[in-house]
Amino acid sequence: AARCARVVEASWFNAAGFAVIVVNAVALGLETYDPVVRAAGSGLRVVEYLCVTGFILEVLVRFGSHLAAPVGFFRDLWNLFDLAIVVAPLLPGVRENVTLLRLLRLARIVRTFRLFPSLRVILVGIRRSLPGLASFLLVTVLLLYGYAMLGWMMFGHTYPGRYGTVGQAMLTLFLLLSLDGITDTLQAGREVTEWAVLYYVSYMVSACYLLTNLLVGVVLTALQE
Amino acid sequence: AARCARVVEASWFNAAGFAVIVVNAVALGLETYDPVVRAAGSGLRVVEYLCVTGFILEVLVRFGSHLAAPVGFFRDLWNLFDLAIVVAPLLPGVRENVTLLRLLRLARIVRTFRLFPSLRVILVGIRRSLPGLASFLLVTVLLLYGYAMLGWMMFGHTYPGRYGTVGQAMLTLFLLLSLDGITDTLQAGREVTEWAVLYYVSYMVSACYLLTNLLVGVVLTALQE
Amino acid sequence: AARCARVVEASWFNAAGFAVIVVNAVALGLETYDPVVRAAGSGLRVVEYLCVTGFILEVLVRFGSHLAAPVGFFRDLWNLFDLAIVVAPLLPGVRENVTLLRLLRLARIVRTFRLFPSLRVILVGIRRSLPGLASFLLVTVLLLYGYAMLGWMMFGHTYPGRYGTVGQAMLTLFLLLSLDGITDTLQAGREVTEWAVLYYVSYMVSACYLLTNLLVGVVLTALQE
Amino acid sequence: AARCARVVEASWFNAAGFAVIVVNAVALGLETYDPVVRAAGSGLRVVEYLCVTGFILEVLVRFGSHLAAPVGFFRDLWNLFDLAIVVAPLLPGVRENVTLLRLLRLARIVRTFRLFPSLRVILVGIRRSLPGLASFLLVTVLLLYGYAMLGWMMFGHTYPGRYGTVGQAMLTLFLLLSLDGITDTLQAGREVTEWAVLYYVSYMVSACYLLTNLLVGVVLTALQE
Ligand code: NA
Ligand code: NA
Repeated sequence: AARCARVVEASWFNAAGFAVIVVNAVALGLETYDPVVRAAGSGLRVVEYLCVTGFILEVLVRFGSHLAAPVGFFRDLWNLFDLAIVVAPLLPGVRENVTLLRLLRLARIVRTFRLFPSLRVILVGIRRSLPGLASFLLVTVLLLYGYAMLGWMMFGHTYPGRYGTVGQAMLTLFLLLSLDGITDTLQAGREVTEWAVLYYVSYMVSACYLLTNLLVGVVLTALQE
Repeated sequence: AARCARVVEASWFNAAGFAVIVVNAVALGLETYDPVVRAAGSGLRVVEYLCVTGFILEVLVRFGSHLAAPVGFFRDLWNLFDLAIVVAPLLPGVRENVTLLRLLRLARIVRTFRLFPSLRVILVGIRRSLPGLASFLLVTVLLLYGYAMLGWMMFGHTYPGRYGTVGQAMLTLFLLLSLDGITDTLQAGREVTEWAVLYYVSYMVSACYLLTNLLVGVVLTALQE
Repeated sequence: AARCARVVEASWFNAAGFAVIVVNAVALGLETYDPVVRAAGSGLRVVEYLCVTGFILEVLVRFGSHLAAPVGFFRDLWNLFDLAIVVAPLLPGVRENVTLLRLLRLARIVRTFRLFPSLRVILVGIRRSLPGLASFLLVTVLLLYGYAMLGWMMFGHTYPGRYGTVGQAMLTLFLLLSLDGITDTLQAGREVTEWAVLYYVSYMVSACYLLTNLLVGVVLTALQE
Repeated sequence: AARCARVVEASWFNAAGFAVIVVNAVALGLETYDPVVRAAGSGLRVVEYLCVTGFILEVLVRFGSHLAAPVGFFRDLWNLFDLAIVVAPLLPGVRENVTLLRLLRLARIVRTFRLFPSLRVILVGIRRSLPGLASFLLVTVLLLYGYAMLGWMMFGHTYPGRYGTVGQAMLTLFLLLSLDGITDTLQAGREVTEWAVLYYVSYMVSACYLLTNLLVGVVLTALQE
């Protein structure tokens, strides 16, 4: 147990863990290239098995470092996450589901966040800045909902594909935040009613203001810490 | 009256008010889904009536808390707003107008701003930052107007749909702020005159500078407070 | 002279000057609406003549306030500007040129900058912040020129309309800063050579970095003052 | 040697160097205009030879200023760069390669960075700000890779041109950061699976947050110095 604890705290342990993640990610990436799979598919599978062995070893060592009081191991959410992506592929129901297995393999790269303290700091920063921005988020949701209802009333009949339901209208308005195709959208709206000009222009102005506020606010809050 | 005043100041009163708004908003949203209306239309109408009852109760309680001096009730603009959206649907002329009734129902979500002090703070912040930016807004209007007149002189005859009148040209230039389709617009302009390159490039540069200034200015002013 | 000087310094003098500019701008704008011109064209011309009279009066009063030492009048660049837009329409060669006359009439709205001290402050702020950003502007020009030469070498033969000369290529790359149609442009480039991916991706990254720097720099410098 | 050192430190030496670069850049640019080449091709070639002579002279003078200890000359990376672009065109293999020769001629404008201390400051600022942003860059790469793998699993079969391999998918997602054509892309995705809405919306939100952070971070770090 003590030896495991010493290993866990050694700097090469995190480095080795990150190396396994990178090798595993490259192997997963190469599997999307058909020529590579045809030429070296079995090699990729060997690399994949080695990586899994590496992950299992890491989990075992971490568990070993908690042998004196095994409950402590299960208190760290990251340990539970590691255990889940190692154990889940063995469960019946998951074992046969290709998509689930692939997602689990992809989930391994999320482990990078555990290994780099600076990345954990970013996550903590984001989590902390959100409550201060809750009111801006609430205003944004109100804005999207209000304009979506108005859009449904104005264009629901003419453009059911875009404004047929309030959910669809909210998606349309969210995508309009990218300002992509705004000229055509406004032109299409004006064929229904001239109020479309007021509708879209006021939406663009308020949305731009709110979004700038949200982004700048999150960034400044995160940087201050 | 005293009991009403105590109720109004209780924390659950605002929470209940917000709950009614959310339930009402969800019911309004579900009404835009045809299958839901067919399956549970009468249920939605019951929810709608319950929400209206809730709104009326809230107004009555707030009025009750001012029973000693009823004039105080009418001094708060929000109380007048609440009264308006409760009373207006009963007026002849409004009662028969489906669009107006829907707008009034939608206006109820604006009441969220009254219930959350933090949202009122945002509104106050925006209002306060605007005078400091008045000069930038004036420059922006001058810029739009000047380029719109130039655009009408240059392209008014060839592209009446875009630059036919000064109002249309201002809308075209405002939409161009989104940089959507700028390449095609400039190409179309060059077929009229090579000056179009100077016209659009100078417009983009000045507009970007002004917009960045406006947005950053509003945000910084709002954050300082 | 003393009376003129007192008038010039009175607050209503600037207000009246601005009122004339606004009335004049509205009249110019209405002239772009054919139905208005047909219905009230002569009325618009009367308003136009009244505004010109107003401008001439303003120049005369300002000149009057300098009667003691008339050279002082010509030392203020704004006075020369006012004189130019009042006198120029009378010159032969200008008198017959409809476009020049229109431009001169449009130039009158620029006088707004003279009347509002806060707008003059903005102009001064922009002028002051530019030298500090000269190096960033130089880098931007170098970047545009370098990528334009590369683009001419790579795509000049295949897309002469976009990269035929270094000037055209610089315009194409400048418009690409709007990110409008980047996907299609890159796809067209890949049909020539796979290096196009490196070319466009590196251009986008460097350009975004430089532009953000330029804009944020200008704004922060302007706000500090 | 002492005379050379004095010349190198004289202010006109840098100015002359910059003048040669500008003349050379203009000559290179004019060579892309076919009519100019036909009318004055030999003149351009003469200018080009004069510029090369100027560059060689500059390198010689700089070398001369280090005559006492010639090793010092080769310690400055810029001197090596200058030497390379003067010597390389004479090497066999390069001499016959039109593209390489052109790139070498274009590389001369990079020398501007050596002549302006303020530009060197910018380069130093960028280099210094990068390590502090390494964690954000790592998160961005993780995000691109994760979404690219998901995109390959979801759309690889239906849209091989966009999501056929993980590399192609990463390029597609990188270009999507421009928000160009996002509406069409999402529509195409929804024809495969409704999960596409969640996929693209979550990608846009996280990518916007990260990019704003990266840009603002780089800029603030660079400005602080
Ligand atoms: Na766009
Ligand atoms: Na765009």
